[in-house]
Amino acid sequence: MSTSTLSPMKKIEVVVSNEDAHAVRTLFEHAGVSGFTAISAAAGLGHGGYHASNLTFNTEAGLTMLLAVASEARADALVVGLRELLESRSGVFFVSDVAVSRPEYFA
Amino acid sequence: MSTSTLSPMKKIEVVVSNEDAHAVRTLFEHAGVSGFTAISAAAGLGHGGYHASNLTFNTEAGLTMLLAVASEARADALVVGLRELLESRSGVFFVSDVAVSRPEYFA
Amino acid sequence: MSTSTLSPMKKIEVVVSNEDAHAVRTLFEHAGVSGFTAISAAAGLGHGGYHASNLTFNTEAGLTMLLAVASEARADALVVGLRELLESRSGVFFVSDVAVSRPEYFA
Repeated sequence: MSTSTLSPMKKIEVVVSNEDAHAVRTLFEHAGVSGFTAISAAAGLGHGGYHASNLTFNTEAGLTMLLAVASEARADALVVGLRELLESRSGVFFVSDVAVSRPEYFA
Repeated sequence: MSTSTLSPMKKIEVVVSNEDAHAVRTLFEHAGVSGFTAISAAAGLGHGGYHASNLTFNTEAGLTMLLAVASEARADALVVGLRELLESRSGVFFVSDVAVSRPEYFA
Repeated sequence: MSTSTLSPMKKIEVVVSNEDAHAVRTLFEHAGVSGFTAISAAAGLGHGGYHASNLTFNTEAGLTMLLAVASEARADALVVGLRELLESRSGVFFVSDVAVSRPEYFA
């Protein structure tokens, strides 16, 4: 089957405030992630939701979702960097499995 | 590896018309989902696509994609609620596996 | 559990320049994918990122992310079509596993 000829990669989705999107992009570059997609998002939250340290997202704040696909090794480096970054900033990230064609484009 | 130290969670993506986004947010809150992201979307469709009951999405209608990450137990509650909600409204939802850092933030 | 009563499907996410979004939609239709969601995106890139053939995405270009959910058989047909399309156009696509309620709506 066609989908079984694809190569396994990791997808990393990061949601941060617009002003922190640049720091995430810098992390992507340092981890050697060759491409990413940025999407404008809005967030809401219930009690105690989507926060880090003493900061809390609110529905007014503009958010950006950044999405990158990378090899497991690069994703590992990115996770270390994102954990560090989000110690002092609001934000969340999720990692999931994806399959891609032409894995060489994702380095 | 860094990615293997992450905690498994469920990601729930819901696509509904803008006017139903609030009902989905209410469901998220009732299921105890502490945070979510909302993204503006547009949809197209082929023959018979993306619909529920007698309503059909068209490319003119504004759509919202709502994305939440939750524990499997909360995702289960959300699935029950979403099934009920989408019996009378246009919309689709997908559930997938993700891994997160700091699972306590996702309740 | 509720999530275990869902049906397995494939999610296909495609990121292309706005002007190629229509070609992707046509592919979706030919593969029998009954519905999809389109999201406006922006992309940045590191060295050598997100490209195909001699074209390269830049941060100025408007991008569209198109998201479809389909059976594995339809996803296979879509992967064949997307590979062919992206030989001559900039763009990337990812395939992942999702679970849905009401699989008959996704054909």
